[in-house]
Amino acid sequence: MTIYTASTTAPVNIATLKYWGKRDKKLNLPTNSSISVTLAQDDLRTLTSVATSESFSEDQLWLNGKLESLESERTQNCLQDLRDLRSKLELSDKNAIPMSKWKLHIVSENNFPTAAGLASSAAGFAALVAAIAKLYELPESASEISKIARKGSGSACRSLFGGYVAWEMGTKADGSDSKAVEVASREHWPEMKAAILVVSDAKKDTPSTSGMQLTVATSDLFQERIQNVVPKRFEQMKQAIVSRDFPLFAELTMRDSNSFHATCLDSYPPIFYMNDTSRQIVKLCHQINAFFNETVVAYTFDAGPNAVLYYLQHNETKLMAFIYQVFGQNQGWELKFSAQDLSAFKDYFADNIADELAFEIDENLHKNISRVILTQVGPAPQNTEECLIDTTTGNPK
Amino acid sequence: MTIYTASTTAPVNIATLKYWGKRDKKLNLPTNSSISVTLAQDDLRTLTSVATSESFSEDQLWLNGKLESLESERTQNCLQDLRDLRSKLELSDKNAIPMSKWKLHIVSENNFPTAAGLASSAAGFAALVAAIAKLYELPESASEISKIARKGSGSACRSLFGGYVAWEMGTKADGSDSKAVEVASREHWPEMKAAILVVSDAKKDTPSTSGMQLTVATSDLFQERIQNVVPKRFEQMKQAIVSRDFPLFAELTMRDSNSFHATCLDSYPPIFYMNDTSRQIVKLCHQINAFFNETVVAYTFDAGPNAVLYYLQHNETKLMAFIYQVFGQNQGWELKFSAQDLSAFKDYFADNIADELAFEIDENLHKNISRVILTQVGPAPQNTEECLIDTTTGNPK
Repeated sequence: MTIYTASTTAPVNIATLKYWGKRDKKLNLPTNSSISVTLAQDDLRTLTSVATSESFSEDQLWLNGKLESLESERTQNCLQDLRDLRSKLELSDKNAIPMSKWKLHIVSENNFPTAAGLASSAAGFAALVAAIAKLYELPESASEISKIARKGSGSACRSLFGGYVAWEMGTKADGSDSKAVEVASREHWPEMKAAILVVSDAKKDTPSTSGMQLTVATSDLFQERIQNVVPKRFEQMKQAIVSRDFPLFAELTMRDSNSFHATCLDSYPPIFYMNDTSRQIVKLCHQINAFFNETVVAYTFDAGPNAVLYYLQHNETKLMAFIYQVFGQNQGWELKFSAQDLSAFKDYFADNIADELAFEIDENLHKNISRVILTQVGPAPQNTEECLIDTTTGNPK
Repeated sequence: MTIYTASTTAPVNIATLKYWGKRDKKLNLPTNSSISVTLAQDDLRTLTSVATSESFSEDQLWLNGKLESLESERTQNCLQDLRDLRSKLELSDKNAIPMSKWKLHIVSENNFPTAAGLASSAAGFAALVAAIAKLYELPESASEISKIARKGSGSACRSLFGGYVAWEMGTKADGSDSKAVEVASREHWPEMKAAILVVSDAKKDTPSTSGMQLTVATSDLFQERIQNVVPKRFEQMKQAIVSRDFPLFAELTMRDSNSFHATCLDSYPPIFYMNDTSRQIVKLCHQINAFFNETVVAYTFDAGPNAVLYYLQHNETKLMAFIYQVFGQNQGWELKFSAQDLSAFKDYFADNIADELAFEIDENLHKNISRVILTQVGPAPQNTEECLIDTTTGNPK
């Protein structure tokens, strides 16, 4: 018996213009377009291997070593769409192997703790769909494939691209025009870096899907956000990326994070994702930008308390002088910076900041942070020779 | 030499439809109408005595025992308006004493800690204006006098009335139609009670005035609030009060508090008044209402983390069974409840709630609360025989 396999890694993306609200829950059609930055897969990625064989008796999924159900309607929709595209291909090519009829084994692993409350479902569904598309040798474009990933998890569609990505909400009821597109490649603006401050015990307040439904149904301010605020901001942010205007990109990113969390607070009952630690980080970012009288950092918060800070390479010392001063005791620094780099941050703080500081730094803030993840803008899903499936048994290695 | 004196107490009011935003900073003209409940003066009041005499050499103010400046433009506006009304009266009555030309001594005391972050400026300016109006024997109505108090502190205009009060924003540029009016008397709905949970170290994030200016200038969602959300809610809340519909009154109150804080979060940079303790109290209130499948409590938060809970007398045991369970270790209970009352709350919790509880109560929440203030709907400013001024010297006793 022959077992065919394919393996792909897919990235995490962190929205700078937030997706919040579904106009169609089954198809994951959003109430507004969104924009994100794709992060580097060395730091945050899902590796997914898929195998198919005439001999397999059922579809099976192993997630981070555990056998998981494939029954969810969202996953089933993804698999069905991929099989439909494969069978179309088989019809047009007599020599194509009829694997659209065969069962699939899927093995998936993250290189980061799923518990951290990072956008793991986006990377997960992007990797699942990309790996099967590769196995099936589908000719469709990344935007076409992104529509399938979207059905699994809305924001997953943005993880089909690297660099700077827009998810165009589209207008059609069947979702055929609700897809991800590239705003700019990683190479267009490679200086973008990200620091993720993972907040301790980030137990999620309200699951995103039910939270979105509640906001759409109850927030008086939400309609203003999706009808007037976001459409304007969407065009401005694309322009800021194309023209590499970090101060504008940063302000739009911070304003949109606050606007999204404001509509959560305006929901009834209110939804709270940011906590006091998140708020202190927001204040610190504004204080840092004010201190340098220059926009060196932007914060954004997803549906949880973790902070994602975006900044440009050439401002790294200025920003990290502050961030390392406050969060230097948290783990994660040594993965990215040498002892020399770190003492350079310390020196910069001592020489250029400490005496000028007009505000107090909370010495205890680091205690509410579990780790710092240092990364940067990254590429689209990648092919990999690494395979999680034993090609003789078709089961996880 | 003759010294003429008058003394008045004035109440605190806590808005249920929030005042946030000025269309004219000098005149304190608001961007939206608001509604409040006036609280009982036994628990929260400012006592102000005023004296005037031909022999006084300057206007002087003693606040809680300390000599304070009267230079602020707002205070000067109040004094000028009152003197103008008095001189009008003097012109029309030849026998009237010409005290409009004389200097004033003002002595004022709160019966609650100003530090607590309660609306002390509202009670303070209401008492100042009401005491002088009494001294001057001004014939103007409370609504007319409220316009003068408004110039001192916007929300002070609402403290000129008891019961349920609306501040009509008005439309005129000179503010002549921006005044407080009675929605319903205390006697109309006397069952309304309030429990104030004073949050520890409630150091204010941003002063109200500058916070309002920032929101008006930067929040994308604010215009929707003042143009569409509040005008509709203003009519609904007045109706809820007139018809004594607590479930509706409570939902509108909670929604408006959240809406106001949402526009603060949507400001740039964002303003945060609620903290994690505030948020836990919000959740607790929704959990309590869900537990009884009945609206027994409404929360509201002003420009600070303190929670004000409104409830009806007949639901006191149901609500306090929870609140005393969580905050029983805080001070303030013994001022309002007998040992019998308190053990009744304990018993109700043990007998009717403990076993049914589907959620966890944070045993440490009380640690972030400094005191509980238990009060209820109260009357308008009151005349009092208590005088803080020595009528022989014209100085504080």
